[in-house]
Amino acid sequence: MFSRLLDNVYIMDTGTVCGILEHQGPLGMYFDKYYQDYYCHEKTFEKAERRMLRDSLDICLKKIDMQESDIDLYLGSDLMNQNTTVHYLARDLTKPFIGVYGACSSFTLTLALGSMLIEGGFANKIMTMVSSHNATAERQYRYPVEYGIQKKNMSTFTATAGVSTCIANMKTSIRIDAFTLGRVIDYGQTDPNDMGRAMAPAAFDTFTNHMRDLKRSVDDYDLIVTGDLSHYGLKIFKEMLKQENIDTSNIHDCGCLLYDASKQNVFQGGSGCGCSALVTMGYLYSLLKEKKLKHVLVIATGALLSPIMTAQKESIPSIAHAVSLEVVE
Amino acid sequence: MFSRLLDNVYIMDTGTVCGILEHQGPLGMYFDKYYQDYYCHEKTFEKAERRMLRDSLDICLKKIDMQESDIDLYLGSDLMNQNTTVHYLARDLTKPFIGVYGACSSFTLTLALGSMLIEGGFANKIMTMVSSHNATAERQYRYPVEYGIQKKNMSTFTATAGVSTCIANMKTSIRIDAFTLGRVIDYGQTDPNDMGRAMAPAAFDTFTNHMRDLKRSVDDYDLIVTGDLSHYGLKIFKEMLKQENIDTSNIHDCGCLLYDASKQNVFQGGSGCGCSALVTMGYLYSLLKEKKLKHVLVIATGALLSPIMTAQKESIPSIAHAVSLEVVE
Repeated sequence: MFSRLLDNVYIMDTGTVCGILEHQGPLGMYFDKYYQDYYCHEKTFEKAERRMLRDSLDICLKKIDMQESDIDLYLGSDLMNQNTTVHYLARDLTKPFIGVYGACSSFTLTLALGSMLIEGGFANKIMTMVSSHNATAERQYRYPVEYGIQKKNMSTFTATAGVSTCIANMKTSIRIDAFTLGRVIDYGQTDPNDMGRAMAPAAFDTFTNHMRDLKRSVDDYDLIVTGDLSHYGLKIFKEMLKQENIDTSNIHDCGCLLYDASKQNVFQGGSGCGCSALVTMGYLYSLLKEKKLKHVLVIATGALLSPIMTAQKESIPSIAHAVSLEVVE
Repeated sequence: MFSRLLDNVYIMDTGTVCGILEHQGPLGMYFDKYYQDYYCHEKTFEKAERRMLRDSLDICLKKIDMQESDIDLYLGSDLMNQNTTVHYLARDLTKPFIGVYGACSSFTLTLALGSMLIEGGFANKIMTMVSSHNATAERQYRYPVEYGIQKKNMSTFTATAGVSTCIANMKTSIRIDAFTLGRVIDYGQTDPNDMGRAMAPAAFDTFTNHMRDLKRSVDDYDLIVTGDLSHYGLKIFKEMLKQENIDTSNIHDCGCLLYDASKQNVFQGGSGCGCSALVTMGYLYSLLKEKKLKHVLVIATGALLSPIMTAQKESIPSIAHAVSLEVVE
């Protein structure tokens, strides 16, 4: 389908900023910075999300000892209509910007796209930026949190996070060795409170194409994570794999890893582009740097729903893009 | 900044579909198909926009004698929240899809991005798709047209159009010889009814970077068009150029060309990603094929505003991306 191997794309470093629930969750210690409340010292949730993403950029730039203007190109995405967070943040940047949109799959979409531009010789250093915020996403896709609407059991919980990741053609200890771009899949699911079920077939499609295109199997990876299927969606995804006799013991989901769903009130688990980005660039990146993991596949999933089309009784299109991260020996 | 020359990217062909006003305008004869009303035989405006884009894809595929599955990758964008038109359309496609968002600049953004992926060897044939629809855009960004709200004089009129363009590494008579990616520019304009003024500085920035990066001048082009500054915005853009002693006689705007603003009730002229796409791939592409033009620069402009940020009294970020089209001798 559309999988490509890469020779020369490395992760320079990352900045990860999260909210209080993500900090209190099982992976909290792996994130660079957290805020105690959803406002992050700002007056609105939208500005709070922007501040988190800006913090993550500053943290990443500091780690790689670079200025904003040392980056050739910025690639960004968030869940707000018209990529509000990244576009309004990009006013502060002096370098070109490309906005992409793949809903919660945007994290791996920006990495795959950036990797092609670096491998193709069009840029040396690219910063990818993604964010999501529980209160901004709830307002836009469902109801403002202040309404206190009762959530359905199959719901997921949008992660509050800003994550910036610098990729470059300069050798580091971790590289992006391959990626697979996904196609839009729709199995006819119409319930916007059950994203896991809508997205699982997209994850399965991209997983299958990745393995077939690159002649790889689950055995080639220490760990395979999906983006934000969460508990219910992950179960469906694993059932689809089992029907193909694929071993699912190394397969997990970022939405399940980010929170402790038994103690934290997050329903089926985490979602949002901040979810897969936090888990990958906080937790998994640390394990890769320590060589506790050597080869990881991240399949970020996205439900491309539009509330206006849901109102017109249309089903929910979904997509998944995958990137493979490898420790450089 | 971020301009690159290209060696091996050609335009295979295009499909252009428009609404009644665009058909009745001065360039109407250049478009492949038009619909008599805003519903296009569908029940909602959103589905009408999708049908126009689907038609444009089918027309383009027929011209190049290919099936949907012969294309390696689809790149798409529209103005609806979450790229509704292209994402819901992409459910019909069996090939990978990347959604981008640059508001009305998305037309050249998809071409520039697709060009890099072809030139970088990642794909042979890429279909870029953009659409806009007056009634869907008015509802989302301003008021539903049924309300009959009086429009302000500085307003532009969103074009109703779907345009698909196939680019490839196979030689044809017209190639994309260069592009410049834009950065996000904000001069503090806060009035969402006056996009031309918000976007003119972004057009100027990209114009300046393009000429400086590639050591080109206005004399290198037969024609330079901006995307959708329309009459008022074009005037500002030209004034900025004149201050730099740049000859503006070859500079026009797609929003001014698409309609006859003196006869058609379109205020300052056309806008929307369908505007620059229609004018470029309908009108200018025809002139290039007939060799009446040899070298054209298209600087599509985009106002990256979010109504929710306008309500929070923030100014409007803008961006412009440029592509250069050249007749192959």
